[in-house]
Amino acid sequence: MTGVEWDMRPGEVAVALPDAFDAGLYFIGAIRTPWTTRAQCPKNAREARERGIACAIELDARYEAGLKDVESATHLLVLYWMHAARRDLVLQTPRHYGELRGTFALRSPVRPNPIAASVVQLLAVAGTRLSVLGLDCLDRTPLIDIKPYFASVDAVADAKVGWHKPREA
Amino acid sequence: MTGVEWDMRPGEVAVALPDAFDAGLYFIGAIRTPWTTRAQCPKNAREARERGIACAIELDARYEAGLKDVESATHLLVLYWMHAARRDLVLQTPRHYGELRGTFALRSPVRPNPIAASVVQLLAVAGTRLSVLGLDCLDRTPLIDIKPYFASVDAVADAKVGWHKPREA
Repeated sequence: MTGVEWDMRPGEVAVALPDAFDAGLYFIGAIRTPWTTRAQCPKNAREARERGIACAIELDARYEAGLKDVESATHLLVLYWMHAARRDLVLQTPRHYGELRGTFALRSPVRPNPIAASVVQLLAVAGTRLSVLGLDCLDRTPLIDIKPYFASVDAVADAKVGWHKPREA
Repeated sequence: MTGVEWDMRPGEVAVALPDAFDAGLYFIGAIRTPWTTRAQCPKNAREARERGIACAIELDARYEAGLKDVESATHLLVLYWMHAARRDLVLQTPRHYGELRGTFALRSPVRPNPIAASVVQLLAVAGTRLSVLGLDCLDRTPLIDIKPYFASVDAVADAKVGWHKPREA
């Protein structure tokens, strides 16, 4: 959808993307959720975890051996591909906030590489199917990666995002 | 390096990767670190933050407007491309541990999509250059994405990885 302007909001800015890609991704599976429209999706991984609706990660059989020891992790960092998002906006106004911000100050799916990263709670592993809490995306979203979440490395409890109004103010 | 077996350790298993990629990535900049060999690199983002050596993220000028409001975040989630890693191992024995584990139970760069995710502390933004603490990779590693880190969503302090022996036991 590069360069299409009809769905831009006032002040949003698109850039010309490079002519060619620099690397390629394999979709290694699919994320299965109950949500088939954007409006149904939770706003983020936290809301998804709190709603308590289990979703599934279906890994392609080719990679099944890669799940050895995954069940020993309570939480995973899941990367997935927001395939419906345009990639050329550098300034954008997200639905939920209504202020113009830089793409790299947002978790919007609209970005040069539309990869989402969510922390999920692992409930169960059965063959190539992982049951998890914390996914916020549409059903059949392509899966890019599954990583163990290490609190000692990945959790920074006192991090702040200045532009964002905390839920408990 | 698909299918090359000479650098595999005993028990490691490679799979045949798909014939084609499913999506393409743009390298949007480069990570600048003092490290030019794997042995010099910190083991992970936490060790990198604790060593206190500032690294830089150089964003391509094309995307500069996307940095608006980034400086209001204390921490960022940075995605980068581990371009030297083979992609076909599903069981592997990491250098640091010496036990055979599934790729998705590890943070090893060797994975179908060799994207690393690190939480960095943001020190300063000057034009398209971000000074940060917490990168563990080789100099000139390709940059894939910069996201604000939201403690409320991304920090799960009580997460555990069962196979991993905690540093403070």
